[in-house]
Amino acid sequence: MAKYDPVKQKDWQIAEIAEAEMIPFDEMCDKLEIPKEERIPYGQKIGRVDYMKCLERLKSKPDGKYIEVTAITPTPLGEGKSTTSMGLIEGLGKRGVNVGGCIRQPSGGPTMNVKGTAAGGGISLLIPMTEFSLGLTGDINNIMNAHNLAMVAATSRLQHEFNYSNEQLAKRNLKRLDINPKNFEMGWIMDYCAQALRNITIGRGGKMDGFLMDSKFGIAVSSEVMAILSVFTSLADLKERLNNVVVCYDRAGNPITTRDLEVGNAMTAWMLPSINPTLMQTVEKQPCFVHAGPFANIAVGQSSIVADQIGLKLFDYHITESGFGADIGFEKFWNVKCRFSGLIPNVSVLTATVRGLKHHGVKAGALPCPPGKPVPKEYFEASKETLKWLEEGVENAVHHVRTIKKAGINPVVCINSFHFDSDEEHAVIRRACEAEGARVAVSRHWQYGGEGALEFADAVIDACKDTPKFKFLYPNELPLRQRVELIAKEVYGADGVDFAPEAVAKAKRFEADPKYNDYATMMVKTHLSLTHDPTVKGTPKGWRLPVRDFLIYGGAKFICPVCGAISLMPGTGSDPAYRRVDVDVKTGKVTGLF
Amino acid sequence: MAKYDPVKQKDWQIAEIAEAEMIPFDEMCDKLEIPKEERIPYGQKIGRVDYMKCLERLKSKPDGKYIEVTAITPTPLGEGKSTTSMGLIEGLGKRGVNVGGCIRQPSGGPTMNVKGTAAGGGISLLIPMTEFSLGLTGDINNIMNAHNLAMVAATSRLQHEFNYSNEQLAKRNLKRLDINPKNFEMGWIMDYCAQALRNITIGRGGKMDGFLMDSKFGIAVSSEVMAILSVFTSLADLKERLNNVVVCYDRAGNPITTRDLEVGNAMTAWMLPSINPTLMQTVEKQPCFVHAGPFANIAVGQSSIVADQIGLKLFDYHITESGFGADIGFEKFWNVKCRFSGLIPNVSVLTATVRGLKHHGVKAGALPCPPGKPVPKEYFEASKETLKWLEEGVENAVHHVRTIKKAGINPVVCINSFHFDSDEEHAVIRRACEAEGARVAVSRHWQYGGEGALEFADAVIDACKDTPKFKFLYPNELPLRQRVELIAKEVYGADGVDFAPEAVAKAKRFEADPKYNDYATMMVKTHLSLTHDPTVKGTPKGWRLPVRDFLIYGGAKFICPVCGAISLMPGTGSDPAYRRVDVDVKTGKVTGLF
Repeated sequence: MAKYDPVKQKDWQIAEIAEAEMIPFDEMCDKLEIPKEERIPYGQKIGRVDYMKCLERLKSKPDGKYIEVTAITPTPLGEGKSTTSMGLIEGLGKRGVNVGGCIRQPSGGPTMNVKGTAAGGGISLLIPMTEFSLGLTGDINNIMNAHNLAMVAATSRLQHEFNYSNEQLAKRNLKRLDINPKNFEMGWIMDYCAQALRNITIGRGGKMDGFLMDSKFGIAVSSEVMAILSVFTSLADLKERLNNVVVCYDRAGNPITTRDLEVGNAMTAWMLPSINPTLMQTVEKQPCFVHAGPFANIAVGQSSIVADQIGLKLFDYHITESGFGADIGFEKFWNVKCRFSGLIPNVSVLTATVRGLKHHGVKAGALPCPPGKPVPKEYFEASKETLKWLEEGVENAVHHVRTIKKAGINPVVCINSFHFDSDEEHAVIRRACEAEGARVAVSRHWQYGGEGALEFADAVIDACKDTPKFKFLYPNELPLRQRVELIAKEVYGADGVDFAPEAVAKAKRFEADPKYNDYATMMVKTHLSLTHDPTVKGTPKGWRLPVRDFLIYGGAKFICPVCGAISLMPGTGSDPAYRRVDVDVKTGKVTGLF
Repeated sequence: MAKYDPVKQKDWQIAEIAEAEMIPFDEMCDKLEIPKEERIPYGQKIGRVDYMKCLERLKSKPDGKYIEVTAITPTPLGEGKSTTSMGLIEGLGKRGVNVGGCIRQPSGGPTMNVKGTAAGGGISLLIPMTEFSLGLTGDINNIMNAHNLAMVAATSRLQHEFNYSNEQLAKRNLKRLDINPKNFEMGWIMDYCAQALRNITIGRGGKMDGFLMDSKFGIAVSSEVMAILSVFTSLADLKERLNNVVVCYDRAGNPITTRDLEVGNAMTAWMLPSINPTLMQTVEKQPCFVHAGPFANIAVGQSSIVADQIGLKLFDYHITESGFGADIGFEKFWNVKCRFSGLIPNVSVLTATVRGLKHHGVKAGALPCPPGKPVPKEYFEASKETLKWLEEGVENAVHHVRTIKKAGINPVVCINSFHFDSDEEHAVIRRACEAEGARVAVSRHWQYGGEGALEFADAVIDACKDTPKFKFLYPNELPLRQRVELIAKEVYGADGVDFAPEAVAKAKRFEADPKYNDYATMMVKTHLSLTHDPTVKGTPKGWRLPVRDFLIYGGAKFICPVCGAISLMPGTGSDPAYRRVDVDVKTGKVTGLF
């Protein structure tokens, strides 16, 4: 019998077997020729790699091939993007390639709410899973501490400026900032889905209890500090960005930054351990970093630039991941992350499943999968009826292939196959996507690991032989609203954009000020649809994108158009995942996470 | 020239020299014969020790000597309790003794506000200092995540119970808890001095945005989860306690616990890495753990029981520390921590300084030291005038010596000496404390490290030869209010206690319910005075202690009498320490923390 059998074993059982024989961190570093002074172990199994020293040591080595993994528009059925990333790493590993990757750290909010983990599945799994799911090496905690310190600085300053005269402030070497309590850009953060903290009033009590004002908490991973961790390119760059975060505005409307509050340097100190990516491994013992960025809907949703920088030096093939579907995760990889990094991707993998594409066949009658209800049995079998769903739904994959091609990146469609898929179904996807010029591979990495991903790995190796003709969707010179129009039309398939009056006023201000020219346009939009409406499936035509507001991230250098009703603080549901998490007090083993 | 010269060098300069040649974690473990499977490194310099494996391996080894370090009533001048703990470890080390200890992790609140760090000073310093000051191995973050998850559970449950019928709840296998939003025991936590979050309104918005109610944030280290980390004695005990935390009450007044909310096990999962103490070292390379508990005023303020358990196995002399002065930190060590641990201390060291005791000579005219103002120069010199202050102020030390003797523990008074102290001044303290039966030693560890602490080390070794006659101040059978009376009279020197009507009502309920019999009485009182009023210095007579409320910590098993006006969320001042913290982007070195 094979060691692993995902059909019979749960992910945690596979992880348990694999973790018992995983390569210890020190040995993995030996294998990758990472010297001792670049190793920052966290326990025996995992650790960080000192990115500054590593990059300096390898600066003259040419970069490996750069492969991004994205997906069709997400469905409640799960497309397995992380699984596919792990499967590709394992498949390339089986081909004898020096391969590695970087994926994003999961947020405690979904882990404790509904999602379980984001470590892949089956034999294409990242280990150790428990550490991965419960905070890993502490990056999100560091982000929380750095971010909330800025809010402590702003709110305590507001109080002191209210209580003290200019003379009293001057004695403390402070100049009145004249903070407007009605105009805060930032809120506080916590890494849970804490809807009760979405809209709050703070500063109640006497004159020593802060200043009475409206405030809010967002989920930690939506923090600008997380965005900065994704896109910074050196420690100097990190410190500069952390000093440019716009916390609030003065009463004349001028931005007040973390630099004005004299807190950006201390924030950098809190973030210091987190500049170094964490090295883990797949079940088949291939190396994979974890660094930054979930939540491509409300945040940038990218693994970090610095992890890709060292991954491209350490590996001949470096796999990186962007969040959710290609409309948001890939679009930000393309126009935001690659612009900041200067790195040129070779290939983008579009992860698709037969059942996910069936779900997008709404006009053909695809059954909905409401949350909390069992998935209809039609999704677990090949039938004439559901083939019609697929024939319509496959347009969603085609749409995203076209998007990838607009970037001049070579697309490879990976059909993440289930054992109940039929060859006929695979052929539908293959035909449609090959017609658009994409390579297509069927992969069975979930069930067979690298051995199941050989066709997929070969397709990627083949696609990497082409010279990339990478180009951005828009130049930095393009005014903000035109950029949004272009993204809406070219990436989402909208007919146009409707800006709310408040958004127009803000946009005009940004467009008129040359300081915003090199700010990235970082869309905030639901991941569950190509449109702003999470209930709209498939590949809709004849619709317009509403933009109701713009957020400004002065440190990350993002202007964020907010499309439709989307909150930066999700809610915990009525049957949350934490109910099932437990600890075996004899062994210290955590159960119920997966 | 000597390697270190604290008179000329700042603490960070000493730390920098020492850290360059410190014993790496692995070598330190080799030295302590801690096998590889018990080592959990965090970087090359520090790491955790697997306490369950370590204790199991050494269970039949007899315990070493158990020495606690406390202090006179704190003054703005600083008495140097951590410095004295480090000095004692170094002094015993110079005597060739196998010695180690455990001190408490500092909170990010004071570190970023006024305090700098709490790592000792001069040559009696714990290193690496930056890691120590900025979150170390993440225990406080884990506490934050565990604690706030309980609040997410309670507040989201409140929302769902409001929105759903009993039938809808039953479908999710939930029974209506009938949470009373007006009666929450717990608030949220954050590890900063965030006065703006002290009194807040949460749950504003629509029916999916939580439930509108008053709420509050406390500083993370005041969390019951931190208290539990201090006093748990096994993983099973930790899990049990984390399931018994009282979050709020139902409308009938019955407590609703983390177990009722089905969140205590998940909290245990978040706390799992933190059950293992972190191993650091002094400038003179002696081992010292860091685990749990600052803030003896609003929390238990003790390093953990488990760290003491393994320290007593690993070392022949194990030094532990309690918070602030002997009235609160030592009293809780004595009646709370030792009762939970069953460990019997041999010696308590009372840290005193000449200038600190002078400050307590208020009737003799001792000058005040208001915050933010320079310390009067009289405190930096020996004079006839200030000798009078000392002669009166020494009573504060005598008072605490008497308290230690009431516990049947051998007291050793350590005069933490400054170069401007006179022999005559030392003699005043020696005479007064020896008359009470205490051993007294002058120590110059700040300036000379272990070499300066030999007299002190010898006094401790000598005091450890006596057989301890340890006894508690009160038996568990004593009713709550009588316990508080006893602590107030015997430890604080009050004439009696005045309970507010609300406190009386609560006390009667606790006294009538046998379930609270084995709950510890954990006083919440200012550390700046023997009384409840922080402005009252010296050794006041003829006063009564007001108790305005009782908090209940069902998991830690504490009933906490709250004396006077004391807040669980301190405030950030107008000239906070974060203004001066910086990062050198070339080296990654943090500056300005110390």
